[in-house]
Amino acid sequence: MNSKEKLERRLNLGLHICVGLDTDFNKIPKHLLECEDPIFEFNRRIIEATKVSAAAYKLNLAFYEKEGAKGFTSLLKTLEIIPAEILTIGDAKRGDIGNTSAMYAAALFDHLNFDSCTLNPYMGVDSMQPFLLYKDKLHFILALTSNPGSQDFEKLILKDGKFLYEEVIEKINSWNQFQNCGVVFGANNPNELERSVSKMKDLFVLLPGVGAQGGSLEEIVKIFAKEGSNKFLVNISRAIIYAGSGESFESAVSAKLSEYNLVVENNL
Amino acid sequence: MNSKEKLERRLNLGLHICVGLDTDFNKIPKHLLECEDPIFEFNRRIIEATKVSAAAYKLNLAFYEKEGAKGFTSLLKTLEIIPAEILTIGDAKRGDIGNTSAMYAAALFDHLNFDSCTLNPYMGVDSMQPFLLYKDKLHFILALTSNPGSQDFEKLILKDGKFLYEEVIEKINSWNQFQNCGVVFGANNPNELERSVSKMKDLFVLLPGVGAQGGSLEEIVKIFAKEGSNKFLVNISRAIIYAGSGESFESAVSAKLSEYNLVVENNL
Repeated sequence: MNSKEKLERRLNLGLHICVGLDTDFNKIPKHLLECEDPIFEFNRRIIEATKVSAAAYKLNLAFYEKEGAKGFTSLLKTLEIIPAEILTIGDAKRGDIGNTSAMYAAALFDHLNFDSCTLNPYMGVDSMQPFLLYKDKLHFILALTSNPGSQDFEKLILKDGKFLYEEVIEKINSWNQFQNCGVVFGANNPNELERSVSKMKDLFVLLPGVGAQGGSLEEIVKIFAKEGSNKFLVNISRAIIYAGSGESFESAVSAKLSEYNLVVENNL
Repeated sequence: MNSKEKLERRLNLGLHICVGLDTDFNKIPKHLLECEDPIFEFNRRIIEATKVSAAAYKLNLAFYEKEGAKGFTSLLKTLEIIPAEILTIGDAKRGDIGNTSAMYAAALFDHLNFDSCTLNPYMGVDSMQPFLLYKDKLHFILALTSNPGSQDFEKLILKDGKFLYEEVIEKINSWNQFQNCGVVFGANNPNELERSVSKMKDLFVLLPGVGAQGGSLEEIVKIFAKEGSNKFLVNISRAIIYAGSGESFESAVSAKLSEYNLVVENNL
């Protein structure tokens, strides 16, 4: 089963919430700090608590790189226990000249065995190509992000009147010959999403920005429902994984995911 | 001595060539493959052969990440033996939302102890800020890159007639309040460099694209000389580190760097 099929199966079950494993040593429940590998142990419990109804797991590489070689081990161990039928996203936002991108792709796909990754398009087509050649993987390319700085460049207006992020979406469509492209679109930009959703119908859309970053899940789901598309994945990290803090934090985490899934169900 | 002072000292000695340690297991001399850590051993010998006249060392993180935890160790060991007076550049092209960028910055500066790094500006100011707050480090931000894909977005024309990369340079100048910003500008774009050089006079310019990628070192040096600026660093990777292949490859490497340094000297 390739990455696309893996994701489609979960979407077809009505599952659209991607759990972001942005695991921060300073934020995990105190009783786990005694474990040999607290970050892995936290992830293991989060996965146990969410695996029935998560659409995907996104691992933010920065949180693991920060811990050095130890973090790398936690990352590898976590990837090993994610059920094979659930898509894993390596949130790395890579992108470099061809021979370097080929190395990053090898690191993410051959070495870590991620099902998909996030990419930064700034350097253009040949910085994306070595990734896209992994035909069975999925590649979520940044278009409009959820942070305030998206105003600086992504929302610049081009000579032809388009926003830069709209031009990026057009290019992603032209790069999608293996049907393995996705796009990252900040959930806190509902008006822009409404205008762009029809142009992303052949792409899987990964939407960060709900939860700690303030985007409305309800609004997002309604936009895709209206378009008649189910090709969207809403990432929620902090608001799910840190939903509880005590000895039994897992039940709070599980309840929080169910709550979000209910919002999806009620608006689809 | 902070990163800026470190770099300025080398530039004031007339040293402008940054040696790129893009070390590829498949390209290093065969007799090193028997060593316990061939990548480190290769780097060690390259550093020995070039440390007198290299302006800086740039380590491309992709080449190390590709080797997993082992690559991470090679990277750490390499950083430890680079002479303290020579600038190290972590070529990582990172950039993410604030809390994630803070983690990447911690990984590069606190954990790996790089003197500087490369950054991708696509996501805007708050994706750069956590890096820039490391005031004693240097931050080289992508403007116009050396690859063919630079046509896709970097050279798009904005509503006000500027190229996107020119807008990026303007923004970098506005982010330079701690005088710790640099810019990445592809050496194979001499015409664009000529037009932009005066707008980068407060920034350190890192120029990839000479050597394997075809840019002319002579042309680049003349442009900066004409502008009266010595704030430039030309990165050369493959053409230097793979200059030799036999048992005594080090002398070919050393000779190649001297050759490039002579081109600089003759045109400055």
